[in-house]
Amino acid sequence: MMLPFARVTIVGLGLIGSSIARGVRSTMPTVRVTGYDADPDVRATAVRIDLCDDVADSAGAAVIDADLVVLCVPVGAMGAVAAEFAADLPGDAIVSDVGGSKESVIAALRAVLPDATIVPGHPVAGTEHSGPESGFATLFRGRWCILTPEDATPEAAVVRLRSFWEALGANVEIMTPRHHDLVLAVTSHVPHLIAYSIVGTASDLEEVTQGEVIKYSAGGFRDFTRIAASDPTMWRDVFLNNREAVLEILQRLTEDVTMLQRAIRWGDGDALFDLFTRTRAIRRSIIEQGQDDPAPDFGRSHQ
Amino acid sequence: MMLPFARVTIVGLGLIGSSIARGVRSTMPTVRVTGYDADPDVRATAVRIDLCDDVADSAGAAVIDADLVVLCVPVGAMGAVAAEFAADLPGDAIVSDVGGSKESVIAALRAVLPDATIVPGHPVAGTEHSGPESGFATLFRGRWCILTPEDATPEAAVVRLRSFWEALGANVEIMTPRHHDLVLAVTSHVPHLIAYSIVGTASDLEEVTQGEVIKYSAGGFRDFTRIAASDPTMWRDVFLNNREAVLEILQRLTEDVTMLQRAIRWGDGDALFDLFTRTRAIRRSIIEQGQDDPAPDFGRSHQ
Repeated sequence: MMLPFARVTIVGLGLIGSSIARGVRSTMPTVRVTGYDADPDVRATAVRIDLCDDVADSAGAAVIDADLVVLCVPVGAMGAVAAEFAADLPGDAIVSDVGGSKESVIAALRAVLPDATIVPGHPVAGTEHSGPESGFATLFRGRWCILTPEDATPEAAVVRLRSFWEALGANVEIMTPRHHDLVLAVTSHVPHLIAYSIVGTASDLEEVTQGEVIKYSAGGFRDFTRIAASDPTMWRDVFLNNREAVLEILQRLTEDVTMLQRAIRWGDGDALFDLFTRTRAIRRSIIEQGQDDPAPDFGRSHQ
Repeated sequence: MMLPFARVTIVGLGLIGSSIARGVRSTMPTVRVTGYDADPDVRATAVRIDLCDDVADSAGAAVIDADLVVLCVPVGAMGAVAAEFAADLPGDAIVSDVGGSKESVIAALRAVLPDATIVPGHPVAGTEHSGPESGFATLFRGRWCILTPEDATPEAAVVRLRSFWEALGANVEIMTPRHHDLVLAVTSHVPHLIAYSIVGTASDLEEVTQGEVIKYSAGGFRDFTRIAASDPTMWRDVFLNNREAVLEILQRLTEDVTMLQRAIRWGDGDALFDLFTRTRAIRRSIIEQGQDDPAPDFGRSHQ
């Protein structure tokens, strides 16, 4: 296989950045991986665990001979970090990112890198853990990575980035930034917001103690706590940067919850039963398409 | 160990009933287990997979020599099935159940079994799978089982039922039916309702296809589909039978979601960040107390 890139720089060495680093080393071992993180402790950890071939001391030094730069920082920090390395970016490098919102990221990057070849991306994968030690090479395997090129983006750049993600084991889909933001509002952002919210509501009750919430969490609540343990900075930025789509989907959800609330109040069992039957089919499809574990309870161990 | 019961009858051979049967056979092999289910196909399956020592053809025949009868049917069916065996119930038998709402179940059972010794129970455990073949002996291990005896219930009956659940590996807690119903509304019922709702909302959108929702579900959505694949009849009955508590918690949640919606609309990143930080601590406690898997992503396999 002809490798799409020879020198890859990863800016931001958290869960996703460190997983890309490990994935490249595992599937494209001849590629040189340079890493950078604004946090000196993270850089020191990256050196200690031998995450990259080289850990640079500044964003500029990190990109200076890269042919691919992947920004793996919270979406609110994309513009600032790109501005830091703008002067050092080689003219033929491709700049990409892994941010959870795309319209805002494109605007932020374009503002500071007016002439660069930018192919925004978003691998739809992750765990609730954060930091350079939480990454692993197979995180993207069988998951989807969405690329949202601009109209003027050279096709060859998109093809190279597609090959890169496919080498990491991902399936690649192309769509507009706007559609991406709506799709992710449904499949990721609103689910996270609701999970955070329900965990917050449960811990604020007067009549039920936090100890009780924890003890009896196996009744369903614990499922929500996983994604409500995701990185706070990353998620704050996603909500602030995909505001319109999140508010639109949230409005839909609120209407649907109100309908269920009314069905419960009026004892309309058929309305509840119909919905509860319909939702089973969706999980079946998700499992059939390899997007979740078929084992009961997510395959959690039961001793 | 002195066994608390010698002849246990399980009425309703779904996930929970079949897990109790398997648990008894594994931890209390000298106990005779009799099973009954209103569905002849389920009875035939129970015989085929050798779930019990004996599968009876009627509820009456099932209980006739029992010293413990555990009702494992949807909460809306408790009264009817108890009425079926009322005439055959031995005077010294203890009747219990595993229903997810307790005030309504006590009222339903007391109406048809006015003189029986009733100790209502609720093991807070389960998976999204249903039916006699989905049960397993270790389902209750390390989970909590809540007993909600009435004031007049003999202490000895509560002690025996506690020993039974402890033998199955559960921890036992005693509380009032009313408090149980509120605690479970928070930790189980409202989470299920929201999961069902969010899956329904996602599948009804015009601008995002169901295919897209499935493909990109690893961004968080798939976590909700697990509990939204739970048994529709069981859950319809829970909502109809724990109406007040569910509506109260749902109202709280709606207020909290509205607050977050407003924070997003007005760009109040600090409010989002504060909540997202607070919720991490709860997951940590759940894992520390052994109520969830510490492995990232619930321990799902990543190939």
